[in-house]
Amino acid sequence: MPTYKLLIAYDGAGFHGYARQPGVRTVQAELETALAPHTGPVDSVVAGRTDKGVHAAGQVVSFTCSEAVDPARLARSLNSRLGPEVAVLDVSEVDAGFSARFDAIERSYEYRVLNREVPDPFLAATSWHVDAPLDLEAMNVAAGAFVGERDFASLCRKAAERATVREVRSATWRREGDLVVYAVTASSFCHQMVRSMVAICVDVGRGVVAAAAVPAILEARDRHAARGAAPAHGLTLVAVRYA
Amino acid sequence: MPTYKLLIAYDGAGFHGYARQPGVRTVQAELETALAPHTGPVDSVVAGRTDKGVHAAGQVVSFTCSEAVDPARLARSLNSRLGPEVAVLDVSEVDAGFSARFDAIERSYEYRVLNREVPDPFLAATSWHVDAPLDLEAMNVAAGAFVGERDFASLCRKAAERATVREVRSATWRREGDLVVYAVTASSFCHQMVRSMVAICVDVGRGVVAAAAVPAILEARDRHAARGAAPAHGLTLVAVRYA
Repeated sequence: MPTYKLLIAYDGAGFHGYARQPGVRTVQAELETALAPHTGPVDSVVAGRTDKGVHAAGQVVSFTCSEAVDPARLARSLNSRLGPEVAVLDVSEVDAGFSARFDAIERSYEYRVLNREVPDPFLAATSWHVDAPLDLEAMNVAAGAFVGERDFASLCRKAAERATVREVRSATWRREGDLVVYAVTASSFCHQMVRSMVAICVDVGRGVVAAAAVPAILEARDRHAARGAAPAHGLTLVAVRYA
Repeated sequence: MPTYKLLIAYDGAGFHGYARQPGVRTVQAELETALAPHTGPVDSVVAGRTDKGVHAAGQVVSFTCSEAVDPARLARSLNSRLGPEVAVLDVSEVDAGFSARFDAIERSYEYRVLNREVPDPFLAATSWHVDAPLDLEAMNVAAGAFVGERDFASLCRKAAERATVREVRSATWRREGDLVVYAVTASSFCHQMVRSMVAICVDVGRGVVAAAAVPAILEARDRHAARGAAPAHGLTLVAVRYA
């Protein structure tokens, strides 16, 4: 069966997350509806199931269908059907058996904080507005505590029987004008893990939590030890890496 | 009477333009409602009456009120009331008699065209997607024909008895990644003038109209000689200059 890989971007604001759910608008449902005239019904697989309101600049989706399709023609057709909220950046044929989810070896997310007193209408949809001054150095010390193979139970919304050990490969904060941007790469992430990291780091940056207290939050392996989750609309899945 | 000057930014998507109109949501109405608890009812004056869907990064508004207000406190209060679509960047007290409209000596607009095959969900709200290749050099030749003091009747939506002579001080196209950005500065603009310039330049860039034909479009002094108007959502009022 021919197998295809899609690279897509979306503005998450209008969607109840990536994954199909009955009764609500999801990226997966719109994508599979747009695919159907070309491929028939497909059961697509996604690299990162983003939550309601979370964006993607480099999400990867794979699917198989019974007959071959022309990748460039499919991309053009999908873009004309999906409208500006979802864009198909690339379509390619891949080896049979390829899974966007199980073959992914690394995911990278970015979280944007607008750090100035005054809001910005043009960044409001894709950043969390924090007007208190932030100590970037302390936030980088906090983020450093996440790097390595660790049990992230304190930072994950509980999913029964799901392992919460993950390998974080890098986690850094940088300033870009009035934005403070968190870039984090891991083998994979559990549910709400990035937004929980951001909530802790911002509390460290504001001086509400000491950077030195972060390792103990992780060691508690208890969701209640954390600082909640930063708002979804600041988060973007930026890239997925394959071997 | 104390007089104040506001520097504001807004995402025009949710508004039927800047100027108050009965029955629809406008920036002016929301701004004056947010001002009222501090200033009482005001009759504000704006530098550039932007159309439905047009954005502003540096719009200027002035008003007088019977009692003095604290500018910094007013800015904070307005930002907390107006939410992320409208931001008050600065509030200052100015000389009595100052008018944001009549004292302005120059307005600058930018128009953003996303010029690549694939749409971009994150630029969709603030740029016009043109997927055909654009010849930037030809577009700059076309834009050069707008510079100087000229009658722009061909580029203005007719307003009875209103003069259509304007002085355009600069008009240039530049590339910024996948964006092609038009920057234009004039003493003032008549209605739909920038979007009409953009429609002509993009048709020149696509090779549909010759750059050499642009002076004749102006000389016709006839709206029908032009190429319509580019969509509102690509346009932003970026700055207003005072003596």
